[in-house]
Amino acid sequence: MIAFRRATQSITRRAYSSCAPSATRFSINGDRLWNDIHETAKWSAPSPGGVTRLCADENDKKVRDWFRDQVLALGASYKVNATGTQFAHFEGKDNSIPPIAMGSHLDTVATGGRFDGPLGVIGGLEVLRSMKEQNVKTNAPLVLINWTNEEGARFFPLLGSSAVYAGQSSVEQAHASISTDNSALTLGSELAKIGYVGDGPNYFDEYPISAHFEIHVEQHTDLEKANKPVGWVEGWQGMTWYNVVFHGDDGHANTKPMWGRRDTLAASAKLITELENLAYEKHGYTTTTGIHSHPFGSCNIQSKTKVIFCLMHKETEGLEEMGEEIVKRIKSIAEMRGLEYDLKRDIHLLPANFWPEAVDCVKRACGDKGIGSRTGTGHDSTMTTLKVPTAMVFVRAKDGISHSAKEWSSKEDCTEGALTLGKAVLNFDELLKQKVASSAG
Amino acid sequence: MIAFRRATQSITRRAYSSCAPSATRFSINGDRLWNDIHETAKWSAPSPGGVTRLCADENDKKVRDWFRDQVLALGASYKVNATGTQFAHFEGKDNSIPPIAMGSHLDTVATGGRFDGPLGVIGGLEVLRSMKEQNVKTNAPLVLINWTNEEGARFFPLLGSSAVYAGQSSVEQAHASISTDNSALTLGSELAKIGYVGDGPNYFDEYPISAHFEIHVEQHTDLEKANKPVGWVEGWQGMTWYNVVFHGDDGHANTKPMWGRRDTLAASAKLITELENLAYEKHGYTTTTGIHSHPFGSCNIQSKTKVIFCLMHKETEGLEEMGEEIVKRIKSIAEMRGLEYDLKRDIHLLPANFWPEAVDCVKRACGDKGIGSRTGTGHDSTMTTLKVPTAMVFVRAKDGISHSAKEWSSKEDCTEGALTLGKAVLNFDELLKQKVASSAG
Repeated sequence: MIAFRRATQSITRRAYSSCAPSATRFSINGDRLWNDIHETAKWSAPSPGGVTRLCADENDKKVRDWFRDQVLALGASYKVNATGTQFAHFEGKDNSIPPIAMGSHLDTVATGGRFDGPLGVIGGLEVLRSMKEQNVKTNAPLVLINWTNEEGARFFPLLGSSAVYAGQSSVEQAHASISTDNSALTLGSELAKIGYVGDGPNYFDEYPISAHFEIHVEQHTDLEKANKPVGWVEGWQGMTWYNVVFHGDDGHANTKPMWGRRDTLAASAKLITELENLAYEKHGYTTTTGIHSHPFGSCNIQSKTKVIFCLMHKETEGLEEMGEEIVKRIKSIAEMRGLEYDLKRDIHLLPANFWPEAVDCVKRACGDKGIGSRTGTGHDSTMTTLKVPTAMVFVRAKDGISHSAKEWSSKEDCTEGALTLGKAVLNFDELLKQKVASSAG
Repeated sequence: MIAFRRATQSITRRAYSSCAPSATRFSINGDRLWNDIHETAKWSAPSPGGVTRLCADENDKKVRDWFRDQVLALGASYKVNATGTQFAHFEGKDNSIPPIAMGSHLDTVATGGRFDGPLGVIGGLEVLRSMKEQNVKTNAPLVLINWTNEEGARFFPLLGSSAVYAGQSSVEQAHASISTDNSALTLGSELAKIGYVGDGPNYFDEYPISAHFEIHVEQHTDLEKANKPVGWVEGWQGMTWYNVVFHGDDGHANTKPMWGRRDTLAASAKLITELENLAYEKHGYTTTTGIHSHPFGSCNIQSKTKVIFCLMHKETEGLEEMGEEIVKRIKSIAEMRGLEYDLKRDIHLLPANFWPEAVDCVKRACGDKGIGSRTGTGHDSTMTTLKVPTAMVFVRAKDGISHSAKEWSSKEDCTEGALTLGKAVLNFDELLKQKVASSAG
């Protein structure tokens, strides 16, 4: 189980009401950004309009190779770590300061759109290109990061490499991540196949960063309703992933009387129905994200069924209550049906806020183009925030649709998002410079 | 859809109160039968106490090769047809008469026991061996048949080769039978891999039989309750297999509000719960035998879910009512949740009786050792009965357990079952001889 702990160090918050001088002059090449988003979408399994680029598949290798070529052409020093994370490091004026990071992920879910998370990586790349062209040199070094297996789509658990970096998991655990299709493949075996098991750095302590900024599509409708292209993300709702395996009895599907059956699929159906009820009762969200039932065949009572589900709530108390309640109901279902079960809480992420000083840098970057919002899900930023000041830039998403080929943000909004990211980084760079100066003074 | 139609020809029923003379002297080598049941159980995937020998897997090849060697050693003329059915033909005194068949299947379900259906094939083999040793020569030829994919465990639909033989399906349809684990394998591709796609005969008309007799474990507790080792099977309960695929929308598992979701797994859970209710309401049985839900991943609302289920009822009216009712509920579930769906009724087998003249042969063979019973499921005999007089011998099953490693019948009961099979065949041979004599006279 990954139980996330926030680092305690913090830098003092300072009050700035507008952007850093370098940020006010900064601009973005929206055509190039838009072109790269759609060009790289070709590395996908067939998925009309969308992108299906599962972690460590052949298309993921292609987009990773492209990323490597792009950052090398920009003059980065480039590294791949053991969990496949790609780091593109660019020197600043003062290289004694840990770099300010921009990062997200180029892998997608099975039914992915073109924006979650490529916008975060390609948006960061566009910031670096524009800075170079505009001769904007930061005081701190910068690093652009392509994290691995953020989605947990092909391998579970999710937030694969950023959880390791933030000290919440290990390289070994990440490599052992199991295949969601119940096959024997692991993240480690498949990363090795595409040649993306590198030397490091793997953990924060081996390569600290000063902060982490990420653009992401909103996946909700707050910006759309407010008619704003961008937003600053104040925090996230809490979420918990469980998996339960019910164990019953084998039996003949046609001849076994209803009484005395120990049918794990019927029990699982009851659980899935209860999960839906729970969302109503507790004013949260619940989703059953997978089911695997055995044995295969057309004449068997199902004797082993695995159900994977997640609970979401904006409040800690609500999330904890939902968790306690569903654990009780699983116990009741098993008792009423004479089943054994194994229950695991895989991930438990309480709702919380990003670092105020980092959020403030995004807020100032947004200016009157943005509003404050919250994310309903986990991101690589919800891992880096355990270590260093972290904040996110949201980009308006049509109808809030995500993890779907229908996911869409306009060229103008993506451009505004990348601009906001660049400005936020420059704002933070200014903040860091002041801090260094004040501690020197 | 396989909608079964009974052939209309029948032979006149005659009244016999006891066994044919040759049957009264007949005996069985129970040690050899028992030894073969347990020896052949070694051809199995790991399954302590049970047998996992899925149709056309490597173990199925081994037991088929063994069967071939045994019947060739007994002097059979041997053929394999295009659906992998093995025929071992033995001449009688009058080879103008189509052979009397004994048959069942050597393949098992994934969680199979040692008796369903090897007892039927090995029991038939034991009858032939004992006849040879005891110099019992039938008037009609005999044939021992190992049918293919009776269980539908690895490939669907079930009753694979016997349905083709009975004209309810075709070789092409059987070869196209889909894998129950949702892989791309088919019965045809896997039979070819183990070298069991033969030349024929494939259909009844190419190789007619006079009758079909089968021993099977009861899979219920009527014999156990009556303290009888064997039984004659009067008929079967009705059963219908459906599969439904719900189509919804892709979406993000964490961020998508509960309202507006088109979640096919939640809909499927409702259906599975309704199926259980239906069994209570209509006094039948229902079983959900499989579920496949997509996309894989830990952050997706499930947008496509397939549910496979069967309905069972002793009465035609009850079975039809259950079918109509579940179709309505599927429609309601889809409408309430804004889903599309594809519904297919794959198999529809109304309850009916075996041929009285064949059942009578088994009844006389049982004598006071047996009682009448009914089967709750389909067998190869429920296919041959569409063409020719068919009957089954039941053997007492401990606690009625089947499709489980716990399936068990005693050596004494298996021996009694094989003896009953042999006597039933001899009784039918006598009946046929009288018929031929009477039509000649």
